[in-house]
Amino acid sequence: MKYFITGGAGFLGSSMADRLLQDKKNLVTVIDNFSSGKMAHIKAHLNDKRFKLIEGDILNLKLLKKAIRRHDFVFHFSANPDIAKGLIHTDLDLKLGISATYNVIEAMRTEGVKDMAYSSGSGIYGDAGLIKTNEDFGPLLPISMYGASKLGAESIIGAFCHMFDMRAWIFRFANIVGARQTHGICFDFIKKLKNNPDKLKIAGDGKQSKSYIYVSDAIQAMLFAIEKYKNKATYLKKETSGNVFIFNVGSGDHISVNKIARLAVQEAGLKDVKFAYSGGKRGWRGDVPVVRLDLTKILRLGWKAKYNSLEAIKLSLRELQKEA
Amino acid sequence: MKYFITGGAGFLGSSMADRLLQDKKNLVTVIDNFSSGKMAHIKAHLNDKRFKLIEGDILNLKLLKKAIRRHDFVFHFSANPDIAKGLIHTDLDLKLGISATYNVIEAMRTEGVKDMAYSSGSGIYGDAGLIKTNEDFGPLLPISMYGASKLGAESIIGAFCHMFDMRAWIFRFANIVGARQTHGICFDFIKKLKNNPDKLKIAGDGKQSKSYIYVSDAIQAMLFAIEKYKNKATYLKKETSGNVFIFNVGSGDHISVNKIARLAVQEAGLKDVKFAYSGGKRGWRGDVPVVRLDLTKILRLGWKAKYNSLEAIKLSLRELQKEA
Repeated sequence: MKYFITGGAGFLGSSMADRLLQDKKNLVTVIDNFSSGKMAHIKAHLNDKRFKLIEGDILNLKLLKKAIRRHDFVFHFSANPDIAKGLIHTDLDLKLGISATYNVIEAMRTEGVKDMAYSSGSGIYGDAGLIKTNEDFGPLLPISMYGASKLGAESIIGAFCHMFDMRAWIFRFANIVGARQTHGICFDFIKKLKNNPDKLKIAGDGKQSKSYIYVSDAIQAMLFAIEKYKNKATYLKKETSGNVFIFNVGSGDHISVNKIARLAVQEAGLKDVKFAYSGGKRGWRGDVPVVRLDLTKILRLGWKAKYNSLEAIKLSLRELQKEA
Repeated sequence: MKYFITGGAGFLGSSMADRLLQDKKNLVTVIDNFSSGKMAHIKAHLNDKRFKLIEGDILNLKLLKKAIRRHDFVFHFSANPDIAKGLIHTDLDLKLGISATYNVIEAMRTEGVKDMAYSSGSGIYGDAGLIKTNEDFGPLLPISMYGASKLGAESIIGAFCHMFDMRAWIFRFANIVGARQTHGICFDFIKKLKNNPDKLKIAGDGKQSKSYIYVSDAIQAMLFAIEKYKNKATYLKKETSGNVFIFNVGSGDHISVNKIARLAVQEAGLKDVKFAYSGGKRGWRGDVPVVRLDLTKILRLGWKAKYNSLEAIKLSLRELQKEA
């Protein structure tokens, strides 16, 4: 199989490249503009003949069309990784989330690439509180530009699949953690504690509780769901509606920000760190304080996360502490 | 009140301008790039001191910011009016639907305009078949770029309302019909019959059945819902989630394409017109053949359409026949 990965030098994209290249039959092309991706993440493959790197921006549709040609399957990971930044630069997620996704699926259409997977997120459910949202949940009311861009991108992918006989696997992930993260709570806490071992600033009241999934579990879930549906799923006929397969993916449990802060302090080998809360139940405007995903659909398919939220966070803190 | 209307020379926008200017206290600014809007629609107001026309494109954010300044309320109607065109020009709805809506709400944010209404559509529900979709319905899986752009735009509006203390009234309309239409089934049939009185080409199998609402009812529903919520609705506090009010708006019943075809023939004063079907249950890829909106929310508020689907279609055909 010939795979094409957007954001392929990033956290998730490079992890997927690693995994795919374990299979000798696979070829992998990675595109990245290195705005947050890192050469170090893909260095191991640079001399592999089965690996190709394109340094370029997927907002350049002409370049993207040429690059995507003659691939079998696209993993679209590229996005704005800094959710809170969307509060200041309100067009970031519009460009890097919605317009970029349009470019990917439009390039696939004109170049005849039929199958893709997209990393969406729990943010599309908005602030649903303690409700365990399943894939059919409504209303969908994202409260950040990040969430809005994920829903907008999903909609565009779905419309293309219907109109142009394409197939898409959409994964609404819990917070993915692990080595190579360049953003997110673990990365943030480790960095802050390194700069100031006496005091840790915590956004919100620390009581936010969300679900975390370890990166290898997230990668495995994608490949598992794609494999399961690959032959079952036929391309669209004009008379049917939509070959889009949507899955919530998480570890099933949750953990509080305060707990993660205590684990980060422990991992950093510190003691008596003062926690300074910014206050309010949200970390920032657009932050969803409580996330509960209903995982029934993917669990029934036979997939289960290897690590729970606590284990995923612990592993992630350890690796990021090493990288710091 | 000082109102700002995007697409203000179009079918809906100009009808809203007419209605608002009936109240002597109102001032109305209209922006339109006249891609489908018409000067004839707003001609009556050009000498009214309470009316201001800006010929310009809302994709020009700088121009839009300047134009939107010092208004109290924004009606955002501007969009691509030709749904099927999105199959050929796949970026039309992305630009005219999603990017344009981002520009409107971003201009409101930077210029301090807090309240807006948006004309969304039943297309966001995708192909839900005979299910009467209410405003909380899920999953939302649009099957056209038009539908995807409406959902993307709603999401962006919702995110802004949450992040920046704004309020939005979102109306998911059934098919709106009436004088001044430049697209849509009535316009299409009248035009076709004028060009060829012997044969009428019908997209699909003619059995599509949807709900239609007369334009004055649609305008009235918007003003009614805005008025009802205006004082009740407080601006967002950081700790709450979303001041976005979503309403389905329609006439409650439905009518088939075949029935509309027969009425169009009758209205054109013709007989023995042959119907030529393109076949298939959809008019085109992305056409939703069956639309059923649950109107409970707005009915409970006390609003009801004056005209049912049949009456709305009849009135519309009569007026478009006159305009033809």
